[in-house]
Amino acid sequence: MSGTVTTLAGGVGAARMLRGLQAVVPPRGLTAIVNVADDTELHGLHISPDLDTVTYTLAEAINPTTGWGLIDETWHAMDALERYGDLAWFRLGDKDLATHLFRTHRLREGATLSAVTAEIAAAWKLALRIIPVTDDRLATKVTLATDGSAGAAGTEIGFQEYFVKHQHSLAISDVRFEGAEKARPAPGVLQAISDADAVVIAPSNPIVSIGPLLAVPGIREAITARRDTTVAVSPIIGGAALKGPADRMLRELGLESSVVGVAHFYREIASVLVIDDVDRDLAAAVEAEGLRCVVAPTIMSGLTEAANLAQIVMESVT
Amino acid sequence: MSGTVTTLAGGVGAARMLRGLQAVVPPRGLTAIVNVADDTELHGLHISPDLDTVTYTLAEAINPTTGWGLIDETWHAMDALERYGDLAWFRLGDKDLATHLFRTHRLREGATLSAVTAEIAAAWKLALRIIPVTDDRLATKVTLATDGSAGAAGTEIGFQEYFVKHQHSLAISDVRFEGAEKARPAPGVLQAISDADAVVIAPSNPIVSIGPLLAVPGIREAITARRDTTVAVSPIIGGAALKGPADRMLRELGLESSVVGVAHFYREIASVLVIDDVDRDLAAAVEAEGLRCVVAPTIMSGLTEAANLAQIVMESVT
Repeated sequence: MSGTVTTLAGGVGAARMLRGLQAVVPPRGLTAIVNVADDTELHGLHISPDLDTVTYTLAEAINPTTGWGLIDETWHAMDALERYGDLAWFRLGDKDLATHLFRTHRLREGATLSAVTAEIAAAWKLALRIIPVTDDRLATKVTLATDGSAGAAGTEIGFQEYFVKHQHSLAISDVRFEGAEKARPAPGVLQAISDADAVVIAPSNPIVSIGPLLAVPGIREAITARRDTTVAVSPIIGGAALKGPADRMLRELGLESSVVGVAHFYREIASVLVIDDVDRDLAAAVEAEGLRCVVAPTIMSGLTEAANLAQIVMESVT
Repeated sequence: MSGTVTTLAGGVGAARMLRGLQAVVPPRGLTAIVNVADDTELHGLHISPDLDTVTYTLAEAINPTTGWGLIDETWHAMDALERYGDLAWFRLGDKDLATHLFRTHRLREGATLSAVTAEIAAAWKLALRIIPVTDDRLATKVTLATDGSAGAAGTEIGFQEYFVKHQHSLAISDVRFEGAEKARPAPGVLQAISDADAVVIAPSNPIVSIGPLLAVPGIREAITARRDTTVAVSPIIGGAALKGPADRMLRELGLESSVVGVAHFYREIASVLVIDDVDRDLAAAVEAEGLRCVVAPTIMSGLTEAANLAQIVMESVT
């Protein structure tokens, strides 16, 4: 088994994958490079949804029902916010607010996001290393495909408005990562990719979770150089995403909403794709894309399932 | 009894005075011009302590024990913040946080502080008008008189660091209102002063609560023009402040910590000073400063006492 693993991570699916990996590789050798293009400023606070989901999950503090936010959370601030009108569409729990207050405080003091992220991970006593893909601004923007309450076709809106406010129910025609050209990988990111024994692309949304990581100059090249020991886990199972709009997004952007579409998306940077048992019949089509295909149970309903998947993932490239 | 009253207001003492005034004058004729030089940005949120104390008190939602913050408050966010280190010296309750989140949200949208303040007052269904003295930045800075944990003598620190973090236990040698020269009275402030039947200077800290109002260009002149119908209520009772450091501040800045010192401070802008019964013997000394002196019970322990004082205050100038 490998000593060091670097994972490209979005939110919930990645957090579960990391929890499984932590059970089968030495936690100190585990690095998560996390999407920050969903980050948003809300009421003056810097919110990093994927960083928090990864941190809270690995700290065993995640709300297991929602997959985001903290367990045993209270909502007094949000309930009180309702007095002031319709602002509480992005629900921030009272305890979760503390993380945003701390992060914003440190950023205002001039700390980098990667430094604050390490401080938060330390406060939760995590052994693995969590690094935002960049300390620079990176913001996912989606273009609406059709007219609707969010705007006319062709209107570009922010990711959280699309994802949370409109529950990703809007058809889109384009995705763009604002700031990507000028963004630099955060300290340690490129080295974590090149030095790890294996690189794991977590079962996150390829378009809006992994896509932003690959859009930061230098990262796609660094992973491509590691293609032989890079394995991706498909977030698409039986043609659908377990969570979120990955399946619709793939279709809307002209890709196939299947493990074959995922294979096509990752073919240049990964040499192995792990697909779920239900997609067994598509293994040959995946391999036709130029990746080796591993078939396994990929639904991580608990730690046991996640650890079993992590074991298979690690064996596939080492 | 007058129809319209404009009050110069700081925090707790002013809020109680306003509550009394609201009981004896038509609430729609009551305007509070409130200090904002204590405002601070904390963890990215815009905090307006005096505006909130006035709003919450008039809404009958203030914490009666502390005199600030909301009644039936919970502290989950602050408790959770302790995980991240020593940041919770400025305690923000969960429900109170909603006000700061809303205010910050609207300010980021480009709203003025006076517009947001009116929205907050409307949300609490208040009848009186609450106006921040200015929409521009105004920040009280105090200069330390002696060396200590907060810095060497001569160091200038922000008001909330002095007041909350160090519990105003530090000796000071100077007070300055950063931004005052360029600040403009908020819309409606000068008119509220010139049009009201009476102007009431609340029993707030003359130096750091009323002082910043008088430092905004145009306001001192507007009140001076109303001197005949302007009445101040002394925040100093028996040589001491009921709450806060007003007594020590007066002394440290070379004024007398007594109703005579207060009379001296207000002599050019008020024609009447209301002092407490315990200071009866100083009435002649107050009048020697050129103000008419009214002796009355000034401790507003409840609504009855506040309304009685308000009645006396109003009768003194109308």
